Amino acid sequence: MSKTALIPIADGSEEIEAVTIIDVLRRAGVEVTVAAVNSGKSLQIRGAHGLEITADCSLDNCTDKPWDLIAVPGGIPGAEHLADSQPLEILLRTQVQQGKLFAAICAAPALVLGSKGLLQEKIATGHPMFQQNLDAKELNSESRVVVDGNCITSQGPGTALDFALELVEQLCGLVKREEVSSPMVLTTSATAYY
Amino acid sequence: MSKTALIPIADGSEEIEAVTIIDVLRRAGVEVTVAAVNSGKSLQIRGAHGLEITADCSLDNCTDKPWDLIAVPGGIPGAEHLADSQPLEILLRTQVQQGKLFAAICAAPALVLGSKGLLQEKIATGHPMFQQNLDAKELNSESRVVVDGNCITSQGPGTALDFALELVEQLCGLVKREEVSSPMVLTTSATAYY
Repeated sequence: MSKTALIPIADGSEEIEAVTIIDVLRRAGVEVTVAAVNSGKSLQIRGAHGLEITADCSLDNCTDKPWDLIAVPGGIPGAEHLADSQPLEILLRTQVQQGKLFAAICAAPALVLGSKGLLQEKIATGHPMFQQNLDAKELNSESRVVVDGNCITSQGPGTALDFALELVEQLCGLVKREEVSSPMVLTTSATAYY
Repeated sequence: MSKTALIPIADGSEEIEAVTIIDVLRRAGVEVTVAAVNSGKSLQIRGAHGLEITADCSLDNCTDKPWDLIAVPGGIPGAEHLADSQPLEILLRTQVQQGKLFAAICAAPALVLGSKGLLQEKIATGHPMFQQNLDAKELNSESRVVVDGNCITSQGPGTALDFALELVEQLCGLVKREEVSSPMVLTTSATAYY
């Protein structure tokens, strides 16, 4: 059976982070649900840089099923909206309690996880601007991606692809990660100018 | 005055590539227009991995103004749909004739530029699967990004961020590129496991 992943998004979510997670997990065959956290009924959100993305469903419809992974994108005010969502908090607490995978990138480790005490037993990272508010057991400020058991955190748009591939590895194993990353062309040489 | 960039998208466009170009150019203050290439009137496209993105307008409404840059994302069948668009072909030929910036990534250098003879005087790259059909003056198969005068090409999702930052550098200069790339966190260390 396919692994399942929940990706909550809101107005002001960082587009590269949200889309890279969704795209890469789907390349791995993970059953990805993109869930809108909205005050209204609309499934459409406008990202931090003005791009309109349509979610698969409302987060309110995602609370009664188990998820193999919940991965939270950053962006301001996207991560603030996600932090305000009580259904998302309940879902994340369930992941932590059940030892299942939970992940966040950029502003989200501090704003969505740390602010709720969900990093107090974890070594974690986040965007340099939000590292001092991480409220983790220990901050790793250097690494692109930090994996501490079932908790995966990362720093920002420039680390989103490594983060997404790490999610694939944790959900589906190293062989699947390599199968996904190979056609994405990660190992090319530096830019050439003529 | 702001620089202007046209990003055409279609059903089956590669989401990471399209979104990274849009996001990064907007971070640089470029006036980005996301234009749908659709048979119908809808501005909504469904990307290669099922994500619904809403364009700013139809490409049909973009043909009567000048663009500082046209950048074409890859993805299958997205790049095929873009290759079939006569308005896009006219716009790209205008860029070439006027010596203005034109760019493509992944399947798009071969399918959208090479197939129309627009790379015959250029050194270029593209996705490894499409390099043999590139029809360029010379193939550079190694580099993440290739800049030959006003033509910028790149290989795939894993090189999309470097490609987008190169577009910023070509449009707005190196200082702006560094201003944009710094908070995106590109220079962090390898993944840490605990």
